[in-house]
Amino acid sequence: MREAMVIFQPSGRRGKVPLGETLIEASRRLGVDIESLCGEKMSCGKCKVRIDEGKANLTGFQGEEEKFISSAEKREGLRLACAAKIKGDVLVFVPEESRASRQVIRKAATKRRIKIDPAVRLYPLTLREASLEDPQGDFERLSHALEGRYGLRDMTLDVEVLRSLGTVMREGNWEITASVWNSREVIRIRPGKVTEAYGLAIDIGTTTVAGYLCSLVTGEVLTTHALMNPQVTYGEDVMSRITYHMMHPNDGLHKMSQAIVDALNSLVENMVEETSLTPDDIEDMTIVGNTVMHHILLQINPEYVGTAPFPPAIHHSIDVKARDMEIRINPSSYVHVLPIEAGFVGADNVGVLIAEEPYKKKHTSLVIDIGTNGELVLGNRERLMSSSCATGPALEGAQLTFGMRAAPDAIERVVIDPQTHEVNFKVVGRDEWSQYSRPGEIKAKGICGSAVLDILAELYRTGIILRSGAFSKTQESNRYRVTKKDNQPEFVIAWKEETSIGRDITISLKDIRQIQLAKGAIYTGCKLMMRKMGIDKVDRIILAGAFGSYVDPDKALIIGMIPDCDLKNIYSVGNAAGDGARIALLDRNKRAEADRIANQVEYIELTVEEDFQREFIDSLQLPHMKDTFPHLKGIVPDDILNPQ
Amino acid sequence: MREAMVIFQPSGRRGKVPLGETLIEASRRLGVDIESLCGEKMSCGKCKVRIDEGKANLTGFQGEEEKFISSAEKREGLRLACAAKIKGDVLVFVPEESRASRQVIRKAATKRRIKIDPAVRLYPLTLREASLEDPQGDFERLSHALEGRYGLRDMTLDVEVLRSLGTVMREGNWEITASVWNSREVIRIRPGKVTEAYGLAIDIGTTTVAGYLCSLVTGEVLTTHALMNPQVTYGEDVMSRITYHMMHPNDGLHKMSQAIVDALNSLVENMVEETSLTPDDIEDMTIVGNTVMHHILLQINPEYVGTAPFPPAIHHSIDVKARDMEIRINPSSYVHVLPIEAGFVGADNVGVLIAEEPYKKKHTSLVIDIGTNGELVLGNRERLMSSSCATGPALEGAQLTFGMRAAPDAIERVVIDPQTHEVNFKVVGRDEWSQYSRPGEIKAKGICGSAVLDILAELYRTGIILRSGAFSKTQESNRYRVTKKDNQPEFVIAWKEETSIGRDITISLKDIRQIQLAKGAIYTGCKLMMRKMGIDKVDRIILAGAFGSYVDPDKALIIGMIPDCDLKNIYSVGNAAGDGARIALLDRNKRAEADRIANQVEYIELTVEEDFQREFIDSLQLPHMKDTFPHLKGIVPDDILNPQ
Repeated sequence: MREAMVIFQPSGRRGKVPLGETLIEASRRLGVDIESLCGEKMSCGKCKVRIDEGKANLTGFQGEEEKFISSAEKREGLRLACAAKIKGDVLVFVPEESRASRQVIRKAATKRRIKIDPAVRLYPLTLREASLEDPQGDFERLSHALEGRYGLRDMTLDVEVLRSLGTVMREGNWEITASVWNSREVIRIRPGKVTEAYGLAIDIGTTTVAGYLCSLVTGEVLTTHALMNPQVTYGEDVMSRITYHMMHPNDGLHKMSQAIVDALNSLVENMVEETSLTPDDIEDMTIVGNTVMHHILLQINPEYVGTAPFPPAIHHSIDVKARDMEIRINPSSYVHVLPIEAGFVGADNVGVLIAEEPYKKKHTSLVIDIGTNGELVLGNRERLMSSSCATGPALEGAQLTFGMRAAPDAIERVVIDPQTHEVNFKVVGRDEWSQYSRPGEIKAKGICGSAVLDILAELYRTGIILRSGAFSKTQESNRYRVTKKDNQPEFVIAWKEETSIGRDITISLKDIRQIQLAKGAIYTGCKLMMRKMGIDKVDRIILAGAFGSYVDPDKALIIGMIPDCDLKNIYSVGNAAGDGARIALLDRNKRAEADRIANQVEYIELTVEEDFQREFIDSLQLPHMKDTFPHLKGIVPDDILNPQ
Repeated sequence: MREAMVIFQPSGRRGKVPLGETLIEASRRLGVDIESLCGEKMSCGKCKVRIDEGKANLTGFQGEEEKFISSAEKREGLRLACAAKIKGDVLVFVPEESRASRQVIRKAATKRRIKIDPAVRLYPLTLREASLEDPQGDFERLSHALEGRYGLRDMTLDVEVLRSLGTVMREGNWEITASVWNSREVIRIRPGKVTEAYGLAIDIGTTTVAGYLCSLVTGEVLTTHALMNPQVTYGEDVMSRITYHMMHPNDGLHKMSQAIVDALNSLVENMVEETSLTPDDIEDMTIVGNTVMHHILLQINPEYVGTAPFPPAIHHSIDVKARDMEIRINPSSYVHVLPIEAGFVGADNVGVLIAEEPYKKKHTSLVIDIGTNGELVLGNRERLMSSSCATGPALEGAQLTFGMRAAPDAIERVVIDPQTHEVNFKVVGRDEWSQYSRPGEIKAKGICGSAVLDILAELYRTGIILRSGAFSKTQESNRYRVTKKDNQPEFVIAWKEETSIGRDITISLKDIRQIQLAKGAIYTGCKLMMRKMGIDKVDRIILAGAFGSYVDPDKALIIGMIPDCDLKNIYSVGNAAGDGARIALLDRNKRAEADRIANQVEYIELTVEEDFQREFIDSLQLPHMKDTFPHLKGIVPDDILNPQ
């Protein structure tokens, strides 16, 4: 069977699919949720996707598509995913509005109000022509005009600009436009009057890289692109990339750095192609990323930040000439890399902070950024503290017996009937839950991250496990058993017949302990910080990062992963780090604010806190049901909430 | 006959010589003056030269040489020029003390008193080791230490330094030395305590490039190297290089720029090799050069500075990262290019100014920097003005009927007997004057620059020409004649038998007019500036540049090229531009001073001055003898000074 490679963005999910399948069929196969109300009959128009690469590798545009796709959208590359059949490799972007929505409150990034005060501004000028009476140098002519007309004093200019200055002035017949960085350095000069300038905000995640191309004049986002971080070849998580560097001291760092720089350059190329700009038209750039991504990008040895006491190479933001990073935008431009709070609280977290601004609020916010490492920020306008906790990969499903990544046929949601203890689950790439599927239709492969909290919460809510995490001995479910081989208690999530792996998919006591360790680490961090702050309740909990976007707040409360908080004040902010990069791009005051905040925030090293060990052990327990009662009414059955 | 290429520095004279000749024989052939008192018998030791390239292309070190050359000098490559015979190509440097001296007062560059306050300073530090209690970033640890220990605030650091910071700190076991540029940017970091730093001062001439490698700690000059400016391939003077760029718009500028950058890099390599340093050990660099050299080096289009109104691309000094200029010293270091006063008054002139400091003196100095273009600076601590005058190449001998460059057998000195009008001359490469030579021994080829003023002054002093420059009709010399072909009056300097060209070498009225135009241009410039300054006499005249070093002040006075001044207050400062570069390297205050002076100096465009034309015509005349009398007593015979 002939196949093609299909990649869906922004999720980054990818895989080989048989030629002739529609994009929506491929999306299901790869675990990407695309909205489809009409059952793929080209009649609802909800499954619009944008083809970023390989337009010619799809079957032709159909008449039905024209009802939903304007000619402008057509030029942008939009198609109905149910209409376009795959003939070869394609890169598909699924717009926000076409994604099948999850039960998560998500702030739309584009709706943030951002002040427009960019670091790079345009200054059109009409210069006096050089003459024998006024033979001053080209640069002095320019800087005097900038001072006279705009009050900009003590200008410098980049040597690359100096090289073309005289020619551009004369080409423009003494009418020019100067791009000035931070009111102090001329970084570009063009003939005539120019009114548009552009910048690029980048969020470098361990797995995904996202870019936002923005107008520096209006603040508008012209286009958003995402791609896989090509460093995944060198390790799935940050620690394995540090290890790769240490195992390849000669070229490991350089290879990883080159990979991300190449990725940024191809991101730039794709974005400028789409918008008919040139790379030089990108005159400013901001970057956020965790500390290790930050270090690798800048070719900084990441070894020390990976071992105690985890000092980063630098906290402060840094402005590096694009050419010094080999990033192909306007070569005289600077790339602004946001500051780092602490070893494991990186520029991505700073991005979240300047986007959410907990330090400006009277009420106290708790920001939880969950990944392989948990980053916590707690505070208000009086005080701000941060810490990090080693959650391990259990919350992403990685270390569980049947754990797997969010790929097709991974179990992603789980509900357990409190009476019968029957399990109803859903797999990635299939709409019907197991309860509504016929035998043989479901072929589960394993358990992915988004099901992990479901399982722990459901097992506890239904009384299958106790507060300690141990299985209740009084239960009668036939799904509970103790393995003969190693005497391990376990609970069956999917029977052999519902899988494609030929055996039951179970959750073992050992798995439950892993999850408890992870949730306990987060809870301990939150609790110790709250104690240090002298509070016992937070006003608001912000869940950031990829994991944050599929955590159900109620589940997190049930298992005691997060401290008590009104459910309506718990929300996920999706890619707030990327929003932070965009905010810093458009408003230079926010760059200074980021440095100030990164410097002010008190970093708490949890492991050296008094009582850390005891608190951590305590936190492994699941909370008393009644403790979480007020918010869980209606979610947890009354007889469980108020046992006789 | 097999030959080898021999190049003598710092004169840059070069040519093919037969194998087997000694270096001193070759020097004579190529017109280089090397002192030799013993007649090449290896017994006076005056002809020491340094072999910069091709040591193996000379015959072996001889026993006699050891009497004069210490083993340390031997390692440096010193030889006696009369002992070493040529077996292949060599690059020879003739030290100041081995040059056959000319009648010119020369200030030894190394004797200037320079304050040592370099832009790059070393700061040894002992840091506190990172710990869980103090996990701050490496850069913050460094900058806090720099502030705490040395009071340096708001430090930044170059991204290249950041890349190695963590490793170097740990390599040095938290003892490190930071190199800081201008008290604000860390440009290098090394483990342990380092106490030596080095810098390089460069003077880029149109023909020659000179480099001074200095200790930034003691100010000592470790070594001086010079080489030809390889751009000579693209044109002998600045205008022809501008033309080359205009005729080759695609790559002309790039080629010339690459040529000089390559030359600087090989200069660096040779110097660090000699001193056992590495290129990275050069942590600072200053450059002076005329405006066109400045522009080409920085890859700035030199077209506009070559055409009216001659605006340079920039007046202000500029600091460019070495790596952005592809100059291979410490890559994070800056190259400081000194400012430009006006289109034709370049950074080399600024170098002369900060070396001579006329702006600090109560008395009024006139600085005359003569080349193809004359650059004039007049002033004192109250006021400073500059101008440039187009002298043309006549003073260098280039446009005269028998003009040639200073190559072997060029007439370089001329004396005329006031009674007999007999001519006694000397050619390059031969010690004996014509008067003391036997027929056939002298084979003059033409007239070079250093003889030009001699000839005009001697013709006038002896009454052969009149004040107007025209030949006296009453003279009876058989050397005076009018050509039949074009009715041109001329005077024979060398008879056919004394030449190798088979005809008399003469100076024609047309030649005299050329010289008058050149000297008149300089005198007019001086006079108009003095008028603007409101003075009729200057206290001091400083002759700078290559031509300045072979101008006899008395001759210049006789022909009225320079205004009246006490002979003892007229002196040549040799390569004062290079001294200026060295001063700026060692004392950063002088950089600011240079920018201030370059900005303050009033540039006078002579050609738009009132009366310019009339003054210029007047200045073509030769001065009344009695006007120059007081200083010329004993130089000009009394009967000429006081004609009956």
